[in-house]
Amino acid sequence: MRTVAVRNIPRASPAIVRRLGEAGVATVHEAQGRTGLAKPYMRPIWMPVSVSGSAVTVLTHPGDNWMLHVAVELCQPGDMLVVALSADNEDGMFGELLATSLQSQGVVGLVVDAGCRDVAALRSMQFPVWSRAISAKGTVKETVGAVNVPVVVAGVAVTPGDVVVADDDGVVFVPRLDAEAVGLACDAREKKEAVVRARLQQGELGLDIYAMRQRLETEGLVYVDSPEQR
Amino acid sequence: MRTVAVRNIPRASPAIVRRLGEAGVATVHEAQGRTGLAKPYMRPIWMPVSVSGSAVTVLTHPGDNWMLHVAVELCQPGDMLVVALSADNEDGMFGELLATSLQSQGVVGLVVDAGCRDVAALRSMQFPVWSRAISAKGTVKETVGAVNVPVVVAGVAVTPGDVVVADDDGVVFVPRLDAEAVGLACDAREKKEAVVRARLQQGELGLDIYAMRQRLETEGLVYVDSPEQR
Amino acid sequence: MRTVAVRNIPRASPAIVRRLGEAGVATVHEAQGRTGLAKPYMRPIWMPVSVSGSAVTVLTHPGDNWMLHVAVELCQPGDMLVVALSADNEDGMFGELLATSLQSQGVVGLVVDAGCRDVAALRSMQFPVWSRAISAKGTVKETVGAVNVPVVVAGVAVTPGDVVVADDDGVVFVPRLDAEAVGLACDAREKKEAVVRARLQQGELGLDIYAMRQRLETEGLVYVDSPEQR
Amino acid sequence: MRTVAVRNIPRASPAIVRRLGEAGVATVHEAQGRTGLAKPYMRPIWMPVSVSGSAVTVLTHPGDNWMLHVAVELCQPGDMLVVALSADNEDGMFGELLATSLQSQGVVGLVVDAGCRDVAALRSMQFPVWSRAISAKGTVKETVGAVNVPVVVAGVAVTPGDVVVADDDGVVFVPRLDAEAVGLACDAREKKEAVVRARLQQGELGLDIYAMRQRLETEGLVYVDSPEQR
Amino acid sequence: MRTVAVRNIPRASPAIVRRLGEAGVATVHEAQGRTGLAKPYMRPIWMPVSVSGSAVTVLTHPGDNWMLHVAVELCQPGDMLVVALSADNEDGMFGELLATSLQSQGVVGLVVDAGCRDVAALRSMQFPVWSRAISAKGTVKETVGAVNVPVVVAGVAVTPGDVVVADDDGVVFVPRLDAEAVGLACDAREKKEAVVRARLQQGELGLDIYAMRQRLETEGLVYVDSPEQR
Amino acid sequence: MRTVAVRNIPRASPAIVRRLGEAGVATVHEAQGRTGLAKPYMRPIWMPVSVSGSAVTVLTHPGDNWMLHVAVELCQPGDMLVVALSADNEDGMFGELLATSLQSQGVVGLVVDAGCRDVAALRSMQFPVWSRAISAKGTVKETVGAVNVPVVVAGVAVTPGDVVVADDDGVVFVPRLDAEAVGLACDAREKKEAVVRARLQQGELGLDIYAMRQRLETEGLVYVDSPEQR
Repeated sequence: MRTVAVRNIPRASPAIVRRLGEAGVATVHEAQGRTGLAKPYMRPIWMPVSVSGSAVTVLTHPGDNWMLHVAVELCQPGDMLVVALSADNEDGMFGELLATSLQSQGVVGLVVDAGCRDVAALRSMQFPVWSRAISAKGTVKETVGAVNVPVVVAGVAVTPGDVVVADDDGVVFVPRLDAEAVGLACDAREKKEAVVRARLQQGELGLDIYAMRQRLETEGLVYVDSPEQR
Repeated sequence: MRTVAVRNIPRASPAIVRRLGEAGVATVHEAQGRTGLAKPYMRPIWMPVSVSGSAVTVLTHPGDNWMLHVAVELCQPGDMLVVALSADNEDGMFGELLATSLQSQGVVGLVVDAGCRDVAALRSMQFPVWSRAISAKGTVKETVGAVNVPVVVAGVAVTPGDVVVADDDGVVFVPRLDAEAVGLACDAREKKEAVVRARLQQGELGLDIYAMRQRLETEGLVYVDSPEQR
Repeated sequence: MRTVAVRNIPRASPAIVRRLGEAGVATVHEAQGRTGLAKPYMRPIWMPVSVSGSAVTVLTHPGDNWMLHVAVELCQPGDMLVVALSADNEDGMFGELLATSLQSQGVVGLVVDAGCRDVAALRSMQFPVWSRAISAKGTVKETVGAVNVPVVVAGVAVTPGDVVVADDDGVVFVPRLDAEAVGLACDAREKKEAVVRARLQQGELGLDIYAMRQRLETEGLVYVDSPEQR
Repeated sequence: MRTVAVRNIPRASPAIVRRLGEAGVATVHEAQGRTGLAKPYMRPIWMPVSVSGSAVTVLTHPGDNWMLHVAVELCQPGDMLVVALSADNEDGMFGELLATSLQSQGVVGLVVDAGCRDVAALRSMQFPVWSRAISAKGTVKETVGAVNVPVVVAGVAVTPGDVVVADDDGVVFVPRLDAEAVGLACDAREKKEAVVRARLQQGELGLDIYAMRQRLETEGLVYVDSPEQR
Repeated sequence: MRTVAVRNIPRASPAIVRRLGEAGVATVHEAQGRTGLAKPYMRPIWMPVSVSGSAVTVLTHPGDNWMLHVAVELCQPGDMLVVALSADNEDGMFGELLATSLQSQGVVGLVVDAGCRDVAALRSMQFPVWSRAISAKGTVKETVGAVNVPVVVAGVAVTPGDVVVADDDGVVFVPRLDAEAVGLACDAREKKEAVVRARLQQGELGLDIYAMRQRLETEGLVYVDSPEQR
Repeated sequence: MRTVAVRNIPRASPAIVRRLGEAGVATVHEAQGRTGLAKPYMRPIWMPVSVSGSAVTVLTHPGDNWMLHVAVELCQPGDMLVVALSADNEDGMFGELLATSLQSQGVVGLVVDAGCRDVAALRSMQFPVWSRAISAKGTVKETVGAVNVPVVVAGVAVTPGDVVVADDDGVVFVPRLDAEAVGLACDAREKKEAVVRARLQQGELGLDIYAMRQRLETEGLVYVDSPEQR
């Protein structure tokens, strides 16, 4: 593993980061072609919550959170820390003190493929965290990893500077260079959904709105009455 | 798999559906002889929550939510949609738009043996969902399944028209033709529990209320004092 | 298995039990050398929550909660019930009635390596429970186990009378005879953390506070600039 | 739960049971429309193995194997025992002695949604078992369940007398009244697969044999050359 | 955590260690009152296999196998290494080189609550290992743990010098001072089982051998004929 | 998702692919700095087995194996197919017919982050497969994915043309351009291990070979004698 800390990564514009955050995880995931979604074990430690930021990535080892301290210095306001591990582990490598440090640098949240602790304090601080576990298990600071290298987090390949969107539904990553296009696709999707929502609220059926009846018949769906009468 | 949509299933009376909902999952499960309980991975996406309804069943495939659109049309006010999959999958096959559609038809909730998304919106709408995961992973509409056929959901065999009772404790299913008898058993159980609760609140012990001491001795329980003194 | 119920176990003083509860799970775990922490699957059924007590231990079998009734009588005000199973099981072996009984004896909480039910009622009663699952699955009262014998709960060996500290972060156990020393270590740790927290809030970096830069360099960490420019 | 033992269940003919066993799990599953397959956690305790039989069903409780003894008497030569539990459990409720008893009655195998022990002895006896775990954890004989009632095993609803087909790939259940039709569908499928296999062995592509190219293009698949050259 | 390596632990006699090994995991587990069994995730990396020894315990951290090197020196011929972790982890902390070292000291096997690698080589060397995972994930040697302190392994509290019995069914631990008594209980159990086995082989039923019929009737089991005729 | 099939990917030389295969998973993983290892759930369906090849990657959806047919045509002798899914799924998307087709094209193995079926036939054909499950669950051919795009498989980011090394220990991926350097590092590692192995076989301790005693003392390890005497 390259033991390196990379400075001065490129980031997407604050405007597009904010726009993708407003759209939310489900819309962004669909808008970029159903890719980039973290596996569903990655859950917020408190809800409701919704945030977006630029990814500063960390690669570390089970039970060792040394690299998180290195990463703090490389963060800018509006960043989110994205922590990957070299192997599955649930130790609580993030808590109140690191959150205090990140918050003082303007970091807006954390995604960690391991455990998190001090849940009550983090909720009070309104510092948002998505993790695979809640665990108070302490960690050491013994083995060097890397900051701002490409990582795999919860099944997704993430590049430093990618946009992170996270809310009650989970976490999605958007490649930095795709962010503008995905934002436009979100606009289109939201407009279309607003129309569909209004029609559904009035009792119209998706079967009709999406014109599914013919294709269902072609594919073999048959309607019958229940043989059983009360 | 039969690719069929069954109309006009029989349902239990609204009165008994409501009564079982009041009794709640734990009481109903006990009252029907400790059967019909969904495995505990089936959890509400927001709490507190409590609802009951008649099961409209859906059988679909991993990553494919086409049949949910077919099911909407076959629902009546007071129904709950109960979605089974042909294989384990956590994709988010239900969200705000489908909930809008179901709510406009009077459907009171959803049990889905897969993932659910748009959690924040569903909480705002107060639309209750029990699922095995929260996931924004989008689905396709490619393969025909079935509506209102017998299914297995979270380890329970469910027949269309069965009564669904769901709350913070999970989900239990009651066969339609047993519903009245289970309701009476709930009455009896609640009365008995009220008496026991009052005695326990006053400090009486279950050992005495349930007359367990003799049987414990027969089965070999021995009381001793701790050898260790402070 | 010894089928025995042990009376008159020694307990730590109420003052130290209370002090450890104030310190919380994460601090206590660190203060006693990163030991004694229950595996992270042991979660509170409602949050926020924080409690501490003396462990009355129960050893029982999958699907059988008989021994919990035996244990109630052996509890004192300030105790917590700690329930171990002879094999993994998620059946709901604890609910509102047992909580009523425990509360009437002054018991302050429960840790159970199985399932729990009546979640809504327990939240209303403000009776705290940590469990591995929420499940309404009923249990029998057929097989004798033991009360106040050493047990293994969620990966930790627990002796009757140990101090239990439990909050939103999980559960940690402190051997009774270590409790005073751990309390002092908590004091020291909290003081140290208060200083660090203040410095972090003002923007100082952990790298500098903990003097990590030299050791990082020795261990091979290299800083580079991103080759990629926007 | 009905505490009942049902005698004289109907069974499929030995010829069709044997025929489905020859076809094997994968072919039978496809031939009956991709239904009836046990979840993949149900694994053989030794391999290679392949067997088929008529299902004698057992419903029992976590940690309790009493009903298996009741079931032995109700078995006939050619039967397979199919054991469901009222809740998830991995205790070893089957071992060498019960296998000896079953073998002496002509029973050809066991499917158990719990644990199995005495693996070495069972392999020596060539008694085939599919289970969710291997565990020596002993069980009690305290609570009555049922024999030959409908059960859910590893996610499949099984009726007594259904045909069980089990091999290295897992377990599939065929409703008794569908067995002949499924056998014919297996014949057709095997014939078709033999032709395809021969063509594939000679290097023909599935793309051509199944005429997929046009549909792939319609659905949007685009072929490009790698931009990267060595 | 005490960072200590304890020398000169007491051990059970080779004769009783060997005797318990012959009895095997399932018999030993039953003979000591259904206690001491490791959770079923602890599996042999190759089969068939059967071994017993005296436990030299190791307590280490996720991803760190330093203490195994310390433990080798403290082993005697006939010992088994028993490795516990401070938190769940599957990293491959044991392989061919450590096995070579252990084998040269006369150590007869390993139980590790983490991962194991070099499976093919270990099978060739006939060095038996029980682990929770097979993983080639490398580990570091950075953090001191302990050797020959009490540990919890796969849910069992193990004291240095306890007897370890391990085979295809899993792993069971016997407290050193109980070993003789458990050996005698194994003798009794084997004799009883031999009689039962012979009767079962001749077609007698467990229902009759164990005289279960009366109690089944008392507990409410009812025999009926299937309503369904072919 | 880009619905694309990429032709003419670059590959590593057959010599280095073969060399890395000889070194095996554990050695290669260490030699490239403990990176590139698939999570340990990725297991061979039969053992012993050992193979290496060039990765032809496939990205497909739960329950849909259409893209595997597209991939066959793009394979060359010596390739291995590496199949990623857009979401977790265990359906059996690979079996005997596809293996026949791959074998006729000279493909030497498959790594699939889903299920596999026809295990007995694949063992007979000696076609090696690593999968996350064994499942006969059939799949559809409805949704277009991609071939030879970057994917994440079992937690590792894989680029088409990377070297795949797989054996009884699992699967490791080597970036194509690193393959030669990793091969040299394997040479060095094997030489060093041969020396260590010989010394360990003669009873020398790792503590001495690796000169660990001083550092253990510095880090706080203390040796004591057991207080307990037999």
